[in-house]
Amino acid sequence: MNISPPQGFLFSAATAGIKASGKPDLALALAPEGASAAAMFTRNQVVAAPVTVGRANLSRSRGRVHALLVNAGNANCATGAHGLRAANTVCREVAKQIKAPAHQVFPSSTGIIGVPLPVEKITAALPGLIHRASHEALPDFATAIMTTDTRSKIAYEEISHRGRSVCLAGVAKGAGMIHPNMATMLVYLFTDLDASPSSLAKMLRSAVDVSFNNISIDGDTSTNDTVLLLASGKSEVGLGAVRRPFEAALHSVCRSLAQQIVADGEGVKHVVRLKIEQASSEKDARQIARSIANSPLVKTAWAGADPNWGRLLAAIGYSGVKIDPSRINIYLGGQQICRNGVAHPFDKNRAHQTMKEPTYEIRFTLGAGKANLEFLSCDLTAEYVHINADYST
Amino acid sequence: MNISPPQGFLFSAATAGIKASGKPDLALALAPEGASAAAMFTRNQVVAAPVTVGRANLSRSRGRVHALLVNAGNANCATGAHGLRAANTVCREVAKQIKAPAHQVFPSSTGIIGVPLPVEKITAALPGLIHRASHEALPDFATAIMTTDTRSKIAYEEISHRGRSVCLAGVAKGAGMIHPNMATMLVYLFTDLDASPSSLAKMLRSAVDVSFNNISIDGDTSTNDTVLLLASGKSEVGLGAVRRPFEAALHSVCRSLAQQIVADGEGVKHVVRLKIEQASSEKDARQIARSIANSPLVKTAWAGADPNWGRLLAAIGYSGVKIDPSRINIYLGGQQICRNGVAHPFDKNRAHQTMKEPTYEIRFTLGAGKANLEFLSCDLTAEYVHINADYST
Repeated sequence: MNISPPQGFLFSAATAGIKASGKPDLALALAPEGASAAAMFTRNQVVAAPVTVGRANLSRSRGRVHALLVNAGNANCATGAHGLRAANTVCREVAKQIKAPAHQVFPSSTGIIGVPLPVEKITAALPGLIHRASHEALPDFATAIMTTDTRSKIAYEEISHRGRSVCLAGVAKGAGMIHPNMATMLVYLFTDLDASPSSLAKMLRSAVDVSFNNISIDGDTSTNDTVLLLASGKSEVGLGAVRRPFEAALHSVCRSLAQQIVADGEGVKHVVRLKIEQASSEKDARQIARSIANSPLVKTAWAGADPNWGRLLAAIGYSGVKIDPSRINIYLGGQQICRNGVAHPFDKNRAHQTMKEPTYEIRFTLGAGKANLEFLSCDLTAEYVHINADYST
Repeated sequence: MNISPPQGFLFSAATAGIKASGKPDLALALAPEGASAAAMFTRNQVVAAPVTVGRANLSRSRGRVHALLVNAGNANCATGAHGLRAANTVCREVAKQIKAPAHQVFPSSTGIIGVPLPVEKITAALPGLIHRASHEALPDFATAIMTTDTRSKIAYEEISHRGRSVCLAGVAKGAGMIHPNMATMLVYLFTDLDASPSSLAKMLRSAVDVSFNNISIDGDTSTNDTVLLLASGKSEVGLGAVRRPFEAALHSVCRSLAQQIVADGEGVKHVVRLKIEQASSEKDARQIARSIANSPLVKTAWAGADPNWGRLLAAIGYSGVKIDPSRINIYLGGQQICRNGVAHPFDKNRAHQTMKEPTYEIRFTLGAGKANLEFLSCDLTAEYVHINADYST
């Protein structure tokens, strides 16, 4: 992919020594002339210090951001008053060096919980990090925010308006415990569109709803999740002129990042696209999708390429959504495997072939209403267990 | 354990050829003079045919049972009208041979979903099964109801009243997807107490609440779960004379079976006793316990003997119960590992030693109220994944 990052942003990455691995662990995005900002955060009641500070800074600056600083390797969570002081210190240091107000610096952290943030390591790396910032270094930024991710995640869209182009680039950090309500997931979206913080917030909510809220790896929600959308305005194209195509581009970038996050889930061998159709409401459809996507029995059957529709039916049955089992049909990769809630003869070899693909689809018709939903999930493999039994988050 | 089964019951087991393994798969309990009965069933909306028929039979007989027939290897679930006919046919056949009304036969099934019940194999085995029934064969009964269980589960209590003894014996089939709301779990409790169906029902509900509803292996709930309590009255001791000690015995037997079920969960290496203290209500405490017990990240940390209190805290945070993180304390095997929601220095070697024990305790104080709860859970191991990726339930 030939990525031309949006204008008005500079990126940088450094190795500050936070990750034990010695890999890059500090990422910076600068908006030298500032950017409008909107953010969404984890719904976990236990929130990391950077989430508290980031939310407060956005509120104080009324959605204005000059710099975004992300560290990987330490979540700065469950670190009490010391953690809040640490996050604020880091913001102040960045602000001093780029000559911006401290509340226009947005902090993010991901990594181990309960260990004090090594503030000195971060501040020591700042001058070089800021000095090296460049328009082209977005891929370095994307690499430095990784934890157990095996590859960096970038998505990109460009739209044209009267000879001008508006760019949107997104980077994400996922893997591990991704859940519909946004978990251990950091997503940063950069655009040179000209838009107000309040219109960005509205568009972001809708984009998250059709992307990051419709994925699940293991059902856990983390304490640090953040989706941040920054708009520099440097394309000199206003939102009003390109609202429809921009919203479509935003949805597309978010969906692509969501797909990349699931595909790179820990130990994941198969991404399964659940199509829930004919639900009474989107809420019901999502609840059913989550029940299926979070069932260890379903996920291990997927790991074994086992077309076990009984486990799917059982997971729908205990989802908490009122259903009529005798109206449920299930299709695996185009082949019907359950009809009106009971066994339906199908070609098992063909089903196994479908389930050996890296990505495939299971479609459910519920006969309850008109709401449809697509939801991305994945299998649960022995490798997932090995990774998480050995890694302290 | 020297088990003397309660009077008024005969037991039997047979190999009918339902299990592919060729192991015993048919179990019978007879109450030649009948028994009072109370039952609790799965809350899954997708219910197996024997659950529908068992519920209807108990209702029609007003809680009177002459025979209980359990088959393992086939759940008779998602089998539609054919499945209901099959369950009724089996009940009628038993009834004919023991000369009792068909609605006084209680059917149970466990095993693969969506495959027609092999009625002929079962009816062919019935005459021998009934003929061989004996007072001593309770262990055979317990073995024949197993599926992926690695050992049979029996618990026993006896109480005395004025020179007479009242016996209570319980057998269970667990493993796999056991969940607080009773999943793929069959539990049969036999007593020679003299009690009415309605008083049995009340006692059973309270016993299930402190035992089977407070355990979780992988969070899945099945379509066939059943707990049945039968009282023959043959001790000639009425409930009124021994209510307190009998209730205690019932709780004790149910708790023992619940513990055995968790310890025999698929791939389980560690049983973890969660003590939730100072919750606002028992409901809140259970919701928090489930959130911890069903978190794949928590369960894999347990598999790796990793004292990762951050994952515990995060699971409490997304449980949906309103909490104040800064009031939460966590203790692992007597050692404090988290204080007021933040890191607390502890001896990691000692923590690892605790977590290498087959059973240990994690205690949480929430500082929110006075409700306490004990909840049994277990680790999630790579072996669980292997078992469930390869086995069609």
